[in-house]
Amino acid sequence: MFDPELANKAGENLGLLRERKRLVHNITNYVSMNYIANALLACGASPVMAHAIEEVEEMVALAGALVLNIGTLTPVWVEAMVKAGKEANRLNVPVVLDPVGAGATRLRTESAKRLMSELRVSVLRGNASEILALARAKSSTLGVDAIHSVDEAADVAVMLARDTDTTIAVTGETDFVTDGGRAYLVHNGHPLMGRVTGTGCVATSIVGAFLAVDRDGVNAAATALAFFGLAGERAAATSAGPGSFQTALLDSLYNIDEEVLRGGAKIRT
Amino acid sequence: MFDPELANKAGENLGLLRERKRLVHNITNYVSMNYIANALLACGASPVMAHAIEEVEEMVALAGALVLNIGTLTPVWVEAMVKAGKEANRLNVPVVLDPVGAGATRLRTESAKRLMSELRVSVLRGNASEILALARAKSSTLGVDAIHSVDEAADVAVMLARDTDTTIAVTGETDFVTDGGRAYLVHNGHPLMGRVTGTGCVATSIVGAFLAVDRDGVNAAATALAFFGLAGERAAATSAGPGSFQTALLDSLYNIDEEVLRGGAKIRT
Amino acid sequence: MFDPELANKAGENLGLLRERKRLVHNITNYVSMNYIANALLACGASPVMAHAIEEVEEMVALAGALVLNIGTLTPVWVEAMVKAGKEANRLNVPVVLDPVGAGATRLRTESAKRLMSELRVSVLRGNASEILALARAKSSTLGVDAIHSVDEAADVAVMLARDTDTTIAVTGETDFVTDGGRAYLVHNGHPLMGRVTGTGCVATSIVGAFLAVDRDGVNAAATALAFFGLAGERAAATSAGPGSFQTALLDSLYNIDEEVLRGGAKIRT
Repeated sequence: MFDPELANKAGENLGLLRERKRLVHNITNYVSMNYIANALLACGASPVMAHAIEEVEEMVALAGALVLNIGTLTPVWVEAMVKAGKEANRLNVPVVLDPVGAGATRLRTESAKRLMSELRVSVLRGNASEILALARAKSSTLGVDAIHSVDEAADVAVMLARDTDTTIAVTGETDFVTDGGRAYLVHNGHPLMGRVTGTGCVATSIVGAFLAVDRDGVNAAATALAFFGLAGERAAATSAGPGSFQTALLDSLYNIDEEVLRGGAKIRT
Repeated sequence: MFDPELANKAGENLGLLRERKRLVHNITNYVSMNYIANALLACGASPVMAHAIEEVEEMVALAGALVLNIGTLTPVWVEAMVKAGKEANRLNVPVVLDPVGAGATRLRTESAKRLMSELRVSVLRGNASEILALARAKSSTLGVDAIHSVDEAADVAVMLARDTDTTIAVTGETDFVTDGGRAYLVHNGHPLMGRVTGTGCVATSIVGAFLAVDRDGVNAAATALAFFGLAGERAAATSAGPGSFQTALLDSLYNIDEEVLRGGAKIRT
Repeated sequence: MFDPELANKAGENLGLLRERKRLVHNITNYVSMNYIANALLACGASPVMAHAIEEVEEMVALAGALVLNIGTLTPVWVEAMVKAGKEANRLNVPVVLDPVGAGATRLRTESAKRLMSELRVSVLRGNASEILALARAKSSTLGVDAIHSVDEAADVAVMLARDTDTTIAVTGETDFVTDGGRAYLVHNGHPLMGRVTGTGCVATSIVGAFLAVDRDGVNAAATALAFFGLAGERAAATSAGPGSFQTALLDSLYNIDEEVLRGGAKIRT
């Protein structure tokens, strides 16, 4: 059964986001930077992209959240992420991490692990294979073919959340959010979201925007993913393919109001 | 009262731009590179993005204007901007500067100041807070809370234009363009422009395109901003939100002809 | 006369692409990365952008094709391209090269020449002036004004294909594909494609996606360009300008099925 309390919370968070217009500082990848910035603006947040090691500490001091995304990482960018993340931790600015491609190359897996170990990360958002890759780095007994279903991904996420003291959000057809204790499933979304590049990255940055107004990682992630998924559902209804869908998704993020979100958020325990 | 002479000039510049298809060399930020290139193509200009220090001098030699934008700057990129700018100055290619985020971090403020001092900049385009940050660097008596209105921003811009011998374009709900002597207000535009990332960057690059056909900085900036603002007005009329607006804005830049611009440009002294 | 056999091959390749969902590894430019990724997703391929020299060898090992594009090159990126290309050659992963701006600066011309000489490139795709710039580097007798027509571009391409043992695809109003022996003309496409940035880059990456399922360079390039050109024709039919065209192009890439492509591909010898 869907949780009406968290649906209300989703509406409340969206209202706060639009009222406070907090800055969301992204150190992210080249491919989806533009789409992330437009999505954050459509939501009502204020995006900034800044990666120079000379300025990330000053920039994060102005921000309501820091989003780290390793989609087109190099070692220099990872250093800037660590520097920004440490300052964010010091200033109590929440940090979100998107471990894009963890498991595909050593650089990605090791960089994600390093960011998880050197920083206090509020929410880690990835797809099942990325989360599994990071869980496996923690537990050598986890086999390569461990995940056959959402339920198994959920078990791994709960374990990783406990091990790392971080909220884990595994996104897919159904999203799963847990801090190792509480857990929610988010049933919003549409298959066309998988046909637009950077959809996962945008989800991560919207989680960052929600964290800027709701410090509870589980609530922020679940409500942000419900909002983004609902925007996807509404966009799909007027789209002829992934191009028009991408455009309509930005319109939906802008047009969904608190009441629509309260009525449309499908979050259950 | 709107100035019919400058409205005619806007139409004339647009005609020249489409006839000459000049190359506009941009050293700009990752976030809006794609949107800038598409906007320039839609206008009828020919965009190139090239930032390698090994090639910027050769590239700018082929260009009708050079656009420098520090939106995602690093020191290495700033060096390339200086190198390109010096060669542009030597070859008499006009230079436009967009000091994105000046005032937010020292790297941004100092880099913008350095570009202003080492280069002969034809037009500096920024929002009120960026222009104020640069003016403050020139005048220590200017307080943090100095700007409370368009009129105050205008005063600061006139002062900065005189100090730096540069045309200043302050964009916002109303745009203000001055070289310290002449001054114009541009009343075109639409609030949705603030909900699409890189709108300011695109404005700067279109100013560059207009400078490639009209070396008078004040005229080029005022007519370019009227054109861009008019495209925004027309795009908003058919948009359901910032996604469809962004798409329609490119269509409008492409479809507005000289006569439409002459009739729609709202520039006044 | 249009070649029905190659039109059938186009449909077949599209079907294989959607069935196998091969990874296409792109080391490409900042301007069109997002559009390339979205176009590949729309086609049914799986794009990845990864340029760190620390990971390119691991990444290309997972890929069905490697696409190298020097649109916003720096020497460091070219090193990564060489490293990835050598590993691709070793693993027999086909390599496509887009020599963006060859002829405009020495860095571009020299980098393209280096990639051609150090790597085994399956397909080189460029516009007439880029291909000419590379041909000239091979043959000092070729004058600056050598190309006055498609026929002359074709002669140069045949010569370069023989000299370099590479399939050359020269795109323009009509595309010309040759390996020095066989040759095809592709008559699909629409003028609006020239008003969207990165159209050539997308064409190159779609050639890469087709190479991942058809190792014959001439067939892969000709069928990919027919597919992309047909998508452009269909997109133009519903567009009001380059903004809506860009969006509709992604929708068309997604919606064209094998049968539509077989019926619409205009490839002739």
